[in-house]
Amino acid sequence: MKNIRIIIAYDGTKYNGWQKQGNTTNTIQQKLEETVSKFVGEKIEIIGSGRTDAGVHALRQVANFHLSDEKWKELQVIYGDNSNKRDKINEYLPMDIKVSEWDDVEERFHSRLNATKKHYSYVIDNGDIEDIFRRKYATRIKDKLDIEAMKKAIAYLIGEHDFKCFCANKKMKKSTVRTIYDIDIVEDKGIITIDFFGNGFLYNMVRIITGTLIEIGLGKRSPEEMISIIDSKDRSRAGYLAPASGLFLNEVFYSKHT
Amino acid sequence: MKNIRIIIAYDGTKYNGWQKQGNTTNTIQQKLEETVSKFVGEKIEIIGSGRTDAGVHALRQVANFHLSDEKWKELQVIYGDNSNKRDKINEYLPMDIKVSEWDDVEERFHSRLNATKKHYSYVIDNGDIEDIFRRKYATRIKDKLDIEAMKKAIAYLIGEHDFKCFCANKKMKKSTVRTIYDIDIVEDKGIITIDFFGNGFLYNMVRIITGTLIEIGLGKRSPEEMISIIDSKDRSRAGYLAPASGLFLNEVFYSKHT
Repeated sequence: MKNIRIIIAYDGTKYNGWQKQGNTTNTIQQKLEETVSKFVGEKIEIIGSGRTDAGVHALRQVANFHLSDEKWKELQVIYGDNSNKRDKINEYLPMDIKVSEWDDVEERFHSRLNATKKHYSYVIDNGDIEDIFRRKYATRIKDKLDIEAMKKAIAYLIGEHDFKCFCANKKMKKSTVRTIYDIDIVEDKGIITIDFFGNGFLYNMVRIITGTLIEIGLGKRSPEEMISIIDSKDRSRAGYLAPASGLFLNEVFYSKHT
Repeated sequence: MKNIRIIIAYDGTKYNGWQKQGNTTNTIQQKLEETVSKFVGEKIEIIGSGRTDAGVHALRQVANFHLSDEKWKELQVIYGDNSNKRDKINEYLPMDIKVSEWDDVEERFHSRLNATKKHYSYVIDNGDIEDIFRRKYATRIKDKLDIEAMKKAIAYLIGEHDFKCFCANKKMKKSTVRTIYDIDIVEDKGIITIDFFGNGFLYNMVRIITGTLIEIGLGKRSPEEMISIIDSKDRSRAGYLAPASGLFLNEVFYSKHT
């Protein structure tokens, strides 16, 4: 068996998120599985580093799949370099999904289980006038956000915490403890980007944190309220769910030993 | 009569260009006229600084229209500041057209006749992998372009020339002499932007020049061929028509006296 790792960019606008499950159609995972299976000529199964919700984008999602040695040899003869395979699969993929890297990796590499860190970015259009070219890739907030207040609130989020209050899955039975390594917030000509770095994120966690930060930036809550929100472990205490279209899965990190 | 100048950004993807003419429906001019007429409550006529083709975008297109003194006073009472009028009209406009400025100007101001200089940008995605988030706002060229060769060719375009060879309108009876003040070409992480500054541009001129520059960048023509192309005054000697989706009307300039 050959283990192939691919890095994928996608515009999530038209898709029902990453994961195929039950009757969900039109997911990115499904589209990739169908296209790669057709391309290599055998049924493969795509393992993603994690789900992204409907409408969320990715710059460098990571996935892997296994290929029989026979098929692998066949592809080597036809296409040679991995970059040729990557270019060929991109011809078959829709315009809003592209593979940027295709590599054969160690057999034990698992895109989900071996992921050690993830980087998400949330983009807010806070300019005087809405940037029409970002309308599908940013959340429009007309009223000026107080970035200093948002920065204060961010400080309370860094570190290992039980982030149950930011988890949309009420039936979550597994641990809701996660570590946020860093959150950066920068503003450039009215475009605010919030970068989240953590060892993992709960269902909707980045969007609910962003919604809470937006409410703080609008002065509806104080930065210090973040402390009691986290302590409460109560979803209803946290802010609103910020729209999916502003969220990007930026990068997935792995330890060097995998 | 009150003369109103508006600055407009639009995503040209879904429109049949700027100008309404004959049976052409779904133009940006038409959409603006309908929406502004409805908003102000009297039929107004939008005068644009110039046309843009179907699919071409604008960051700061300039237009003006006249309003009766009566209506103007009415709007003043209801909305006060011009920025409030701008915000209100934006609520009525579709997501891909936005007014960024609304000002009352001198009566003699004419957005087309008084324009002295225009700035267009053409964006080429020349990265290793297509940037899916630019697929509607850049032209994808997979093979690496020789930017130095393109720069050499650009030098022959600067100044006052008869640019008939770059004019798509074969029946053009007016002068095809124009002055190009400057053309800049910059590359940043695979994205090549060509900025054109001139006193005016003929029908399809920027896109045909870009097509010719792309052919030079691909090594299909030498930079020096640009001289004979211009001299020929023959459209068939110039390069292909680069796609509309990569083109942006960036800015329209006016002399300080208008």
